[in-house]
Amino acid sequence: MAHISHLGKGRLAQYVKEGLKRCQSISAAVAEKPQRDQDHNEEPAGPRMVTEVPGPRTRELVKEIGNYQNSDAIHFFVDYDRSKGNYIVDVDGNTMLDVFTQIASLPLGYNHPKIVQAMSDPQNLSTFINRPALGSYPPADFVDRLLKTLLSVAPPGLHQVQTMGCGTCSIESGQKAIFMAYQRRKRGDRLPTEDEMTTSLLNQEPGSPKLSFLSFTNGFHGRCMGALGMSHAKWFHKLDFPVPDWPIAPFPQLKYPLEEHVRENEQEESRCLEQVRDLIEKYSQRGEPVAGMCVEPVQSEGGDNHASPAFFQGLQDICKETGIYLMIDEVQTGGAASGKFWAHEHFNLKSSPDVVTFSKKMLSGGFYFTDELRPTEGYRIYNTWIGDPSKLILLEQVISEVKNKQLVATAAEVGQVLLKGLKDLQQKYPGLLQKARGLGTLCAVDMPTVAIRDQIITKMRSKGVHTGGSGVKTLRLRPSLIFKKHHAEMFLETLGSVLKDMEQK
Amino acid sequence: MAHISHLGKGRLAQYVKEGLKRCQSISAAVAEKPQRDQDHNEEPAGPRMVTEVPGPRTRELVKEIGNYQNSDAIHFFVDYDRSKGNYIVDVDGNTMLDVFTQIASLPLGYNHPKIVQAMSDPQNLSTFINRPALGSYPPADFVDRLLKTLLSVAPPGLHQVQTMGCGTCSIESGQKAIFMAYQRRKRGDRLPTEDEMTTSLLNQEPGSPKLSFLSFTNGFHGRCMGALGMSHAKWFHKLDFPVPDWPIAPFPQLKYPLEEHVRENEQEESRCLEQVRDLIEKYSQRGEPVAGMCVEPVQSEGGDNHASPAFFQGLQDICKETGIYLMIDEVQTGGAASGKFWAHEHFNLKSSPDVVTFSKKMLSGGFYFTDELRPTEGYRIYNTWIGDPSKLILLEQVISEVKNKQLVATAAEVGQVLLKGLKDLQQKYPGLLQKARGLGTLCAVDMPTVAIRDQIITKMRSKGVHTGGSGVKTLRLRPSLIFKKHHAEMFLETLGSVLKDMEQK
Repeated sequence: MAHISHLGKGRLAQYVKEGLKRCQSISAAVAEKPQRDQDHNEEPAGPRMVTEVPGPRTRELVKEIGNYQNSDAIHFFVDYDRSKGNYIVDVDGNTMLDVFTQIASLPLGYNHPKIVQAMSDPQNLSTFINRPALGSYPPADFVDRLLKTLLSVAPPGLHQVQTMGCGTCSIESGQKAIFMAYQRRKRGDRLPTEDEMTTSLLNQEPGSPKLSFLSFTNGFHGRCMGALGMSHAKWFHKLDFPVPDWPIAPFPQLKYPLEEHVRENEQEESRCLEQVRDLIEKYSQRGEPVAGMCVEPVQSEGGDNHASPAFFQGLQDICKETGIYLMIDEVQTGGAASGKFWAHEHFNLKSSPDVVTFSKKMLSGGFYFTDELRPTEGYRIYNTWIGDPSKLILLEQVISEVKNKQLVATAAEVGQVLLKGLKDLQQKYPGLLQKARGLGTLCAVDMPTVAIRDQIITKMRSKGVHTGGSGVKTLRLRPSLIFKKHHAEMFLETLGSVLKDMEQK
Repeated sequence: MAHISHLGKGRLAQYVKEGLKRCQSISAAVAEKPQRDQDHNEEPAGPRMVTEVPGPRTRELVKEIGNYQNSDAIHFFVDYDRSKGNYIVDVDGNTMLDVFTQIASLPLGYNHPKIVQAMSDPQNLSTFINRPALGSYPPADFVDRLLKTLLSVAPPGLHQVQTMGCGTCSIESGQKAIFMAYQRRKRGDRLPTEDEMTTSLLNQEPGSPKLSFLSFTNGFHGRCMGALGMSHAKWFHKLDFPVPDWPIAPFPQLKYPLEEHVRENEQEESRCLEQVRDLIEKYSQRGEPVAGMCVEPVQSEGGDNHASPAFFQGLQDICKETGIYLMIDEVQTGGAASGKFWAHEHFNLKSSPDVVTFSKKMLSGGFYFTDELRPTEGYRIYNTWIGDPSKLILLEQVISEVKNKQLVATAAEVGQVLLKGLKDLQQKYPGLLQKARGLGTLCAVDMPTVAIRDQIITKMRSKGVHTGGSGVKTLRLRPSLIFKKHHAEMFLETLGSVLKDMEQK
């Protein structure tokens, strides 16, 4: 009871009274409630639509919030109390199968009982209400939490980890770890000079060296300036912002079906690798050497673009040859959805990447890194909060469910159902679907135009299936890890009926 | 009871059983506990040290975590369950008066009963466990929460607000809002061209224009690249990172006591304002026009540097004359500690700043902005989480306490006690203390060298008072908002005894 021992008696008594009252009303609710499925993941049997989406209540709220900020990105307001499992319920009472799950960031769906339980555990209370400056005043159980969560699922070969607040901060901290290691290698054993320290404060060489970071067309890594300088997915992420002029290599544009374009795709990937080499050489020549490169296992925001394991192996080979560092951005692909815990595990790399970033389904941002990339001084990778240990409490439940319920295997199996279904529909509606592709449940399919893609998303939503887009004309599936075969079939049936409807028109 | 209506009956029954058991053990604890002060903020009567700090348990944990990340920034591991009010308890059982409060980020101290209560309220549960992609799927009560929290304490003249995850993201999003407005003004009514959109994706002009942002020597605004480009406080924040070459103006270095250096300080501030003008002109000439400037009301990380209201008024005048935007960074100074809710309210500016950023004591990051700075398209200021509504639940309690208990006035009063005490000690120990200064409880004093400053911090900690440093040789006070006169006196007595001790040696 250490966690409450400092509370005053009067106050505690009041809590107890209120707590008992709450317990009693929960009992009453249980008694009133008709008995339903005992499955912990009990969720609605299917979608149930009562208004169009956005419905009248969402439209009211959009208008209200529009007084205080731009509201154009709002799809609908959500009743999170009533959302459950794979089903999201909006404020107008529409129950939709959610195949987008908060932009791929909800690992166990809505209101998962294990997470409810962790949240309700008084042992965890103090972690939620006393957010620490984690880099300087970590909680007593922090090492233990790291071991039970992030370190228990570290990518093969990586043993160092740093928590961060969000994906962008993870990317930029990974970049900084790489810039530091690159300069440290140049300095050798000597310490930074007074001149280096002083000039760094003035944004001038040699302390602030002209280094660059290589990224890929259609990549997306985040919204702060270092991450945005590597993002090339959509103009509205970028327009008007003075980002650094760093090298941008082409990401392969593969032809589908893959089995019919083996030779062409190999050539395309070789072409891209050659350009990577050329750019590294070019930027070295112009005095802005490339310290690292950053790539997504599946380019997500930029249109669900895949490349072969050979391409990623090729990138790593180039990195080793040219002495630059490889950062794999698993913010959207990490955390089991690819059918492996980390999507880059599909690539059979010769050794681990130098940095692997995460966020979204991992609930905490952060990155894994090699020993070589470990900062040699304190406060180098740092900020006030540098993550949030309360997110690790929730992550512990996620990882335990992933392990106990074999959710990595589930993602692989359900992914196959989805991909086969998409390919079947593509065969049936070749004028409407193209390039069905996927890795685990990270599935996608292209439509002929952005207008048709958006129309299909809207029609599916009106039938109770909520999905998202990516790139220009891609339908992007990002279900939770508790998305099962019957959910996949429900999604496919709905898509099929929408396509049929559209073809007839 | 909507929030639990989707849980299965069996599971619910189990929760109820567990809940009742917990209620019973709380009752038992209350019965066992000797009656103490009924004050809700009941806390230890004073510090109690049982080991040196860092103690043996912290040293063990530092060694353990050192296997997985650099641990050099750790001061000590904390027992957050046992910490209470203004007192932090480390894992070795040392109880210290905390005058640094997680780098100024803990508004109501540890385990404040109102926050405990908000966390324990089942009504709030779903907000803690279903973190939304807030920009697209906000919770039903989000507008209401904004009104009760951030909008209820908006700086005079500002009515637009955007939440963000942390201070750095707030700064960079504020920068982006400014870059957008600057370019929009240039474009006039016409929409962005195809060429602008395309080049923006390639980090090239005209889509990615060569704009710059003016900042000040010794400023600190965060760790991602756009924020780091404006930070000039300490080499280890900066060394090895290729930040943008933006204009850096001198921040006034005032002489103390202020009343004895009125003329000199006026000249110093004029000199700095002149340099600001020159830099804006210079960067315009070289084709990298300044779109905005960013300044802290009190430079915190960089050494607790203050300037007069006239200086800040002068900055705003320059902004208006030259058509650039003024961003005031209140990440560390905002949230009542300055003796006004926002520190820039001390400056009597002619109109509101264009952007005011916050984080830390506000528990959520974010920024306020003028109507002119409101993005005209969706997804322009955006990321997956773009804040965390669960932090607003806690902030609601903070703001309600600040209002009900007049904590803004408390900060002003306690700040006067601190500042007078520091000045008295400075008079008594002129060889050890210099430049006592403060705004509310944002107080500081300089020591002759970094070594003496660090020695004083260590000695104070061994006597049970935990403070922090800033700049090179500054002692920085950042107590919570429930830090009262008797805490201030305790701090001053301890400092006095340390100084006496050091003088005698």
